[in-house]
Amino acid sequence: MKIRLHTEDLKSALNKVLSVVDKRNSRPILTYTLIETANDQLNISATDLEVSSKVVIKAQVDNPGKFCVNAKNIFDILKELPGTEIELSLDDQSNTLKLNCGDIHYSLLIYKADDFPHLVFNQDVNKFKLSSEQLANIINKTSYAVLNDETRLYLNGIYLQEIDSKLRAVATDGHRLSLLETDLSENNNETLINGIIIPRKGIFEIKKISETYPDSEIELSVDDTFLYVNAKNEYFLSVRLIAREYPKYQAVIPNKTTYTMTTDRNSFFDAIRRIKIMSNEKSNGVRLKLSDQTMTLTANHPSLGDAMETMPVDYNGKEMEIGFNAKYLIDTLHSFDEGEISLELNNELSPIIIKSNSLPNYLGIIMPLKL
Amino acid sequence: MKIRLHTEDLKSALNKVLSVVDKRNSRPILTYTLIETANDQLNISATDLEVSSKVVIKAQVDNPGKFCVNAKNIFDILKELPGTEIELSLDDQSNTLKLNCGDIHYSLLIYKADDFPHLVFNQDVNKFKLSSEQLANIINKTSYAVLNDETRLYLNGIYLQEIDSKLRAVATDGHRLSLLETDLSENNNETLINGIIIPRKGIFEIKKISETYPDSEIELSVDDTFLYVNAKNEYFLSVRLIAREYPKYQAVIPNKTTYTMTTDRNSFFDAIRRIKIMSNEKSNGVRLKLSDQTMTLTANHPSLGDAMETMPVDYNGKEMEIGFNAKYLIDTLHSFDEGEISLELNNELSPIIIKSNSLPNYLGIIMPLKL
Repeated sequence: MKIRLHTEDLKSALNKVLSVVDKRNSRPILTYTLIETANDQLNISATDLEVSSKVVIKAQVDNPGKFCVNAKNIFDILKELPGTEIELSLDDQSNTLKLNCGDIHYSLLIYKADDFPHLVFNQDVNKFKLSSEQLANIINKTSYAVLNDETRLYLNGIYLQEIDSKLRAVATDGHRLSLLETDLSENNNETLINGIIIPRKGIFEIKKISETYPDSEIELSVDDTFLYVNAKNEYFLSVRLIAREYPKYQAVIPNKTTYTMTTDRNSFFDAIRRIKIMSNEKSNGVRLKLSDQTMTLTANHPSLGDAMETMPVDYNGKEMEIGFNAKYLIDTLHSFDEGEISLELNNELSPIIIKSNSLPNYLGIIMPLKL
Repeated sequence: MKIRLHTEDLKSALNKVLSVVDKRNSRPILTYTLIETANDQLNISATDLEVSSKVVIKAQVDNPGKFCVNAKNIFDILKELPGTEIELSLDDQSNTLKLNCGDIHYSLLIYKADDFPHLVFNQDVNKFKLSSEQLANIINKTSYAVLNDETRLYLNGIYLQEIDSKLRAVATDGHRLSLLETDLSENNNETLINGIIIPRKGIFEIKKISETYPDSEIELSVDDTFLYVNAKNEYFLSVRLIAREYPKYQAVIPNKTTYTMTTDRNSFFDAIRRIKIMSNEKSNGVRLKLSDQTMTLTANHPSLGDAMETMPVDYNGKEMEIGFNAKYLIDTLHSFDEGEISLELNNELSPIIIKSNSLPNYLGIIMPLKL
């Protein structure tokens, strides 16, 4: 095998697949990347058996071949090379990859391509398309509410479901929930109607794809076990879905709410951040007192002191004081753009809904803290 | 007490003293900052009993007073406040500091000023002056060689000594050494002639001062226990010196060397970084083979492979192969500017000297590794 290509092309491809490479060192081969020639292209792949990715780049292939090389090691080398052309060739006798760049010579120990797990990056079933904006939006508006706790695996991802010809994305950790709906180009996707759960690591990789290809259409497909993502036939992902039932999250969403408080998102966001400083580090508990056209935010820390802030709001409902984990309020408010937001509520103990007219297909729900 | 001042002024002062605040939580008061009024000024101080710092800022003092407040807590608050004026007042009854900024109100629990350690920031003894460039230079050219290992306390700092009317700065960890000489405005400083050891944390704070006041003259003085630093009567430090004898480092510096290799600093630096990638992670061992007008760098990693690079050098001495910890070479080369550097040596086992004509008062010494 003999290949010539630009340092930057290979470095950029490895940079994409490196985040997939197994960090747990469960099997040495999973810290390697598979490099295969295919006509005038190279396929660069990595996997941890949960998430796999493949990037296609151009190269001058004088002699076809394939091999596995330590992904971080060759990336570290490329980072230090001058940004010129390099030559890769296999030395079958010593079982090494020769990497040459002028007076610089590396011999890298390799694994055979056959040692690498067999990866599949597309299935022609249950296909649909989303724009990279839609994908980014789904992730940015919901992923903050994904549970970060391995004990309840079914909450460790974003739930995607086709409902009424729309795609609904939901994330919850049991204390708060985020829900976004977006248009679906193709309907009656059987697997999506049943719903799929995309795990955290897959979410991170899909976000990277949406950022690498802005303003693009991304092709997706799902089978019972995997979600497949294809960006322009250049960057592929396969994500093993969480094989659990997603909980009946609808029960948390209030059917109707009695009172509505409307205020400026930025002012509310800044005030909560200021008051949170004096909240208990464990509970992050802050109090919101709603009265006629005014909200008073307070917090008290046993060894630091207390904080109080008043701000004007549009509210003429029942006077009440509700406790919240300030972090949940901050996360949810952060996911809204500037402008007016509204907080819909019933009483001191029921979940509240945060909405904005500028994002009609999105809502955040937060459970109050008992005071 | 009542004070009015700008958020930014207090935030900037706290940002300077915060790095001094005790991280070990040995005594709660050491995580607090002392704030004292003095005419139309505030003095903001912090200490961990090893390093102390004080910053002076302007304020409108309507009523004098002093108190201690949790340094990180008030800094966190100031970060979130709008950049306007704030009012500080003491509430003697509740033993709190009231911090008011429009509709935003904090009550912060305080300690009495008397609970704070008594700090001294200047002594009129053994005074000398250095420009902020000189201070920055001393630190940038030597601190990388300071030992990072509490077992040999006497190597955990930069050694400063007046020798032949110059100030000499030395750092060594036993495997490499850096030495810089700089002009001294005042001579015969008794304490400096005996030599002082400035500990790591003090070095960091002095560097901050030199960066905060570029192109300035910094006043210093030393007694048996402390180094005092005064930048424009606005920013003060006192640094407890390491009360140990510095080792006889001169023995490490070769009196004469037989061979000299001269080469381009940047090319050498880049080559070592490339070869280091294939060195053993523990020893960082690389080999330099010097022969007629050529240097060959090699490294070998048992599970990754090997690397080799040749580069032109100016050398016509004995052919030899020397082993080095690549990290030490990288650190030392990094401390030189671009241009020509020379490597002076005797044989495979004696320390080498790295020098540059562009920095005649500076040298780096590295012990070879046994191959």
